[in-house]
Amino acid sequence: MKKLQDKILSDGKVLSESVLKVDSFLNHQIDPPLMQAIGEEFALRFKGNGITRILTLESSGIAPAMMTGLVLGVPAVFARKRKSLTLVDHMYTANVHSFTKNETNEISVSKDFIKKEDVVLVMDDFLANGQAALGLLDIVKQSGATLAGIGIVIEKGFQPGGDLLREQGIRVETLAHIASLENGQVTFLAEADIQ
Amino acid sequence: MKKLQDKILSDGKVLSESVLKVDSFLNHQIDPPLMQAIGEEFALRFKGNGITRILTLESSGIAPAMMTGLVLGVPAVFARKRKSLTLVDHMYTANVHSFTKNETNEISVSKDFIKKEDVVLVMDDFLANGQAALGLLDIVKQSGATLAGIGIVIEKGFQPGGDLLREQGIRVETLAHIASLENGQVTFLAEADIQ
Repeated sequence: MKKLQDKILSDGKVLSESVLKVDSFLNHQIDPPLMQAIGEEFALRFKGNGITRILTLESSGIAPAMMTGLVLGVPAVFARKRKSLTLVDHMYTANVHSFTKNETNEISVSKDFIKKEDVVLVMDDFLANGQAALGLLDIVKQSGATLAGIGIVIEKGFQPGGDLLREQGIRVETLAHIASLENGQVTFLAEADIQ
Repeated sequence: MKKLQDKILSDGKVLSESVLKVDSFLNHQIDPPLMQAIGEEFALRFKGNGITRILTLESSGIAPAMMTGLVLGVPAVFARKRKSLTLVDHMYTANVHSFTKNETNEISVSKDFIKKEDVVLVMDDFLANGQAALGLLDIVKQSGATLAGIGIVIEKGFQPGGDLLREQGIRVETLAHIASLENGQVTFLAEADIQ
């Protein structure tokens, strides 16, 4: 998605060979028209798949998931993250390990909001090691719902998450697929240049 | 705002005399067209106030803040919540006490995203004791920006937050102002019936 790639090039900050900071438009400050364009793009890619529900993870997944839900005309559910849950009654839960923070959080979704009749689009802002996506997929599996695919705003293609998911036959749609952050520069995968 | 009040009456669950559960459309599952209507309503109330930035708190403030930002044509910033921060460099921080959870979190906002030239609309999903709003106001004050007012989706009028803020001369706009949750019933303040 060219508009997103241009934004990453103009406003993203490469902090290291593995860290891209996009907090000026995606995960601290939000650029609403860009989120709308992201929602329209995901809706275009997944329309005709009979999606009934979007599932994401707080907090940075909420903006793109809600805009996609608005265009597709379906609700967006965000899983909650906690260190440990006391009340897991009537909840699906899964563990998500963060390599960056070196901590494991339990994520949870109420059983009221994902049903086995649902066709679910899982979404997140970043795909790196794939741990958050795997946790969300675990919840979809527990619910018995059908997975339509995964929508990712920015994929770090040099980290293993994308391969891990695609090898399982899961459809992963990425709007900005980064090949490398070497030498302080963002390089996109060629395929991502084709919208 | 009638549409929101109707949604609260049809889908909200009164769990006690002080707890209203709205997780089917606001703070766990999100109803995107309702968020759009909420954004339009806040934009209508605050248009002409020269707002340049919206400030909210993760996670449940993000959806209404982003939709308001989309209509007003300004970015939405969400403060991050943490138990304690190691890196507070280049950040505004404030403490927010949660009476419900009986814990204090530090909230933080990058100095890059609130400047002293800004006119800020502070937003949140709920107003009860006012602690989150006070934390966000503290951050606006630290930045030297101008406060346009506070936009609240649901105010629990029987808790002290609203009075606390209005007594300071702050403009608080509430879309659904709840007078009472007694006897398992939601009663709105009469003034809130007038849009």
